[in-house]
Amino acid sequence: MKLSQMYVPTLKEDPADAEVVSHKLMLRAGMMRKLGSGVYTYLPLGQRVINKFQAIVKEEMNKSGAQEVLLPALQPAELWEESGRLENYGPELMRLNDRHDREFCLGPTHEEVITDLVRDEVRSYKDLPINLYQIQTKYRDEIRPRFGVLRGREFIMKDAYSFDVDQASLNDSYQTMYDAYSRIFDRCGLEYRAVKADTGTIGGDDSHEFMVLADAGEDTVVYCNSCDYAANLELATAEIEAEQSEEEEKELELVDTPQTTTIAELMSELGLPAKKMIKAVLYTVDDREILALVRGDYEVNEIKLANLLDVVNLDLAEEVNYQELDTVKGFTGPIDLDEVEIIADQLVMNITNGVTGGNQTDKHYLNVNPNRDFAVDTIADIRTVKPGEKCSNCGGELEQTPGIEVGQVFKLGTKYSRALDATFLDQNGKPQPLVMGCYGIGITRTIAAAIEQNHDDYGIKWPTALAPFTVHLMSLGASEEVEEKSQQLYQDLTESGIEVLLDDRNERAGVKFNDADLIGAPIRITIGARSLAEGELEVKLRQLDEEMNIDADNDIAEIKSLIDEKI
Amino acid sequence: MKLSQMYVPTLKEDPADAEVVSHKLMLRAGMMRKLGSGVYTYLPLGQRVINKFQAIVKEEMNKSGAQEVLLPALQPAELWEESGRLENYGPELMRLNDRHDREFCLGPTHEEVITDLVRDEVRSYKDLPINLYQIQTKYRDEIRPRFGVLRGREFIMKDAYSFDVDQASLNDSYQTMYDAYSRIFDRCGLEYRAVKADTGTIGGDDSHEFMVLADAGEDTVVYCNSCDYAANLELATAEIEAEQSEEEEKELELVDTPQTTTIAELMSELGLPAKKMIKAVLYTVDDREILALVRGDYEVNEIKLANLLDVVNLDLAEEVNYQELDTVKGFTGPIDLDEVEIIADQLVMNITNGVTGGNQTDKHYLNVNPNRDFAVDTIADIRTVKPGEKCSNCGGELEQTPGIEVGQVFKLGTKYSRALDATFLDQNGKPQPLVMGCYGIGITRTIAAAIEQNHDDYGIKWPTALAPFTVHLMSLGASEEVEEKSQQLYQDLTESGIEVLLDDRNERAGVKFNDADLIGAPIRITIGARSLAEGELEVKLRQLDEEMNIDADNDIAEIKSLIDEKI
Repeated sequence: MKLSQMYVPTLKEDPADAEVVSHKLMLRAGMMRKLGSGVYTYLPLGQRVINKFQAIVKEEMNKSGAQEVLLPALQPAELWEESGRLENYGPELMRLNDRHDREFCLGPTHEEVITDLVRDEVRSYKDLPINLYQIQTKYRDEIRPRFGVLRGREFIMKDAYSFDVDQASLNDSYQTMYDAYSRIFDRCGLEYRAVKADTGTIGGDDSHEFMVLADAGEDTVVYCNSCDYAANLELATAEIEAEQSEEEEKELELVDTPQTTTIAELMSELGLPAKKMIKAVLYTVDDREILALVRGDYEVNEIKLANLLDVVNLDLAEEVNYQELDTVKGFTGPIDLDEVEIIADQLVMNITNGVTGGNQTDKHYLNVNPNRDFAVDTIADIRTVKPGEKCSNCGGELEQTPGIEVGQVFKLGTKYSRALDATFLDQNGKPQPLVMGCYGIGITRTIAAAIEQNHDDYGIKWPTALAPFTVHLMSLGASEEVEEKSQQLYQDLTESGIEVLLDDRNERAGVKFNDADLIGAPIRITIGARSLAEGELEVKLRQLDEEMNIDADNDIAEIKSLIDEKI
Repeated sequence: MKLSQMYVPTLKEDPADAEVVSHKLMLRAGMMRKLGSGVYTYLPLGQRVINKFQAIVKEEMNKSGAQEVLLPALQPAELWEESGRLENYGPELMRLNDRHDREFCLGPTHEEVITDLVRDEVRSYKDLPINLYQIQTKYRDEIRPRFGVLRGREFIMKDAYSFDVDQASLNDSYQTMYDAYSRIFDRCGLEYRAVKADTGTIGGDDSHEFMVLADAGEDTVVYCNSCDYAANLELATAEIEAEQSEEEEKELELVDTPQTTTIAELMSELGLPAKKMIKAVLYTVDDREILALVRGDYEVNEIKLANLLDVVNLDLAEEVNYQELDTVKGFTGPIDLDEVEIIADQLVMNITNGVTGGNQTDKHYLNVNPNRDFAVDTIADIRTVKPGEKCSNCGGELEQTPGIEVGQVFKLGTKYSRALDATFLDQNGKPQPLVMGCYGIGITRTIAAAIEQNHDDYGIKWPTALAPFTVHLMSLGASEEVEEKSQQLYQDLTESGIEVLLDDRNERAGVKFNDADLIGAPIRITIGARSLAEGELEVKLRQLDEEMNIDADNDIAEIKSLIDEKI
């Protein structure tokens, strides 16, 4: 393409309402424009990147045996009533009525529609397994759309749904998708981790999220620095060693601790490190009280705790519960708190001569020793792990990094097939619920994540597979030789099947260089009068920030070898 | 693909609610399923056809210099208010409110969004012309969705919008799109006509509709049997010869014509042909009355009349107008009707000694001669032409055929750019409204139209360019040689880049043959034990209904030459 004929409205300044880098750069590079809150138009350059990524996704989906379909965005509300999600999904589900006042919603996801599709047609175990996927526009009425396409209200997703006869077969389908996803993000040249993820309110047995590592990530990935263990912060676990304390157990003591409102203040007052503290948090779960204990330098991980208790929601206990239990908010501890179920994190059990709340205002116990001074109902991993803990897989060290979720694979099991009565006849002719998996990739989200991971102060540094063009060609000055060489090279590159953007605009060199950096094609080639006279063209590799000259008479061959070897 | 692994749920019987062939066959061949009224899911076979057609459309759009973008379906209602269409569009426009109670609509078309996009960014004549296109899902809340995807509520469109500096440049952009559309439908192997079409309420100067000729068409195409003239029935014109009547003008006579309620009855009673009748229809236009005259064997063409009068709507006159004008409904004629503007069709002026209403109940005039007995304000073409009339282009004969509109090109002019204040600075630095064109192709509609035009009682006869597979390969019987040859040929075809569907299901021959006809790949290859023993494979060309044998040892070469030469 020639830039003079392409609609690429680049911007010199950062747009006012763009908070993160990918949002700024997608607007500045002329990839997209905002139509409304969380709703974007993709311009030619953005659409090229979308097409590139979609082609990779389709190739790998087809290769994995998944079959492409297209499901409607307009979904009858009755289907969502059947699954129970019409109410549960809440205001994120966009709803509308048609002219006959029938209720519809705009699909944020397609479990209902796909289950409805197959329930009438897949009749026998012989028809299974199948995996159907689509690339389609989704709608989610985010309360606060932000970060450009990272959190939009209309966005493009690849979603796939697998149907199997049993769990073992689902495990295979799941692994096939997991492998396809890995190939997709590998091909895109992204640094990512597939992390174990919580199955949350969707239910289901197992899930992994694919996280692109980038500073703007709203999620936290915990990973091992020596093996491939990786998990969402909410799920990450670490190895615990039973410590043999050197310290002798001292006598329990109740002391006054006025005017210490934080653990830090308290422990500093007492001259003890935070890890001597036994922090106690009181929750209400289905009308009973749970006291969760973690070491003072950790936080209670409510997702782990909820999963342990097999409940969806945990509520912090209200003032009234404290009174009824003869304790005081801010000074709760496990000692003599007989009516409460106590769940202690593994690390709490290693504390010798610790500190905990006295169950009276401005009182704490000193020299607390678990088992001696209070009984524990359950010992479990209920803390959020911290960097530096030991990998439970290999003993290596755990690290943390922000990540952007770009894909998720999910073993749904029979949640939807049971709700919508989608069965098949097994080998004995007995109806069985279909065993489902679902698998998503955020198309526009991945593109934004790629930019978050690959940019500098001047613009985007596209991974080659996603770049809108491989070569950004520009000429400087207006000499006839330069002009002729530009046109020739443009034609030669095009004929060689190398995607090239020729900046043939009548603009100053500075403007052209800035736009080249902004747009971020992997190879920038500059044709200038001086270097051309010396038989050379100037090359800059955007990803590597490497500059070099190539032989003007052998340019195509040299460019090809740069593509093969360098980018 | 192997059919055993593909989700192609074919149906033996016609589904109950499918009225037209394409709807029936798309369901029966397992191309799609209905989710709700006018809302369809495309299954793998349907999606393959969609992908094929979209690829052709994209190729030709890109080749024409149009640039691909993607605009949101979710459109702020304010934009539609600005253009005045929020009310005008009526209940076909689907509307919804977001969680903050802001009003949106689901785009049935994108003139507002695209004009809004460019109005802020296209600043100079140097940025023009541009043409932006997208392939996207559209929404139209049809009052009675029917005919499958021919009239759906959620459907896929290619829409393009051009922006030019002036009418001359728009004419070029329009012609470029017209040519691209012709190439697209040519490549699809469809019999179609590009017909002049009414610009209707959208306004604008010029428009052509691309009509696929098929019996199920709801539109009527008038075309010349000897030149390339073609027009929508509403716009078609014909050549008129001034006739020199042999007949002598007789004296005007007012006669009683009781109990004749139709023109046919009246003329039969009078012993005259219908073409002697001067039919008069009274309209109210902006508070004045218009009397339209056409020959008794023709109908008034209200679109031509409205265009002549430059109004959007014509209303038939109400009872009261008849009284005020001293005439009677059912007996209106032009004689002595002084307060009314009279517009006569060209053919009326050739009538000698005709018949017309007497402006009194049960009275008609005989021996009426235009000009002698009444004056005419305007003579114009205001009739709907009939087959057999003369082509005004070449004098050939006009014929009629039903057609399905699959595309439209449209010179919008400045309607939207003025409404949304989208201007550019011309060479003199003066702001001018952008001159726009819009261009649509119904993606799913074209596929249905292709089936309407290409099918028989057994199923679809795909044009090669749109076929989901080029070759449908099936084996009969379970001999080892047959099985081995099937797998070998399947592999050879795949490696040769020929798209093949292998029916490897454990089904009876009858079922396999029926499904092959239904799915409609251009080449069916049957591998049977008997013919294989003779070194031959059986081939059927679906489009041509031609059967032949090919050499089993030279199969790929023979199949390739069939593809090149026959289909």
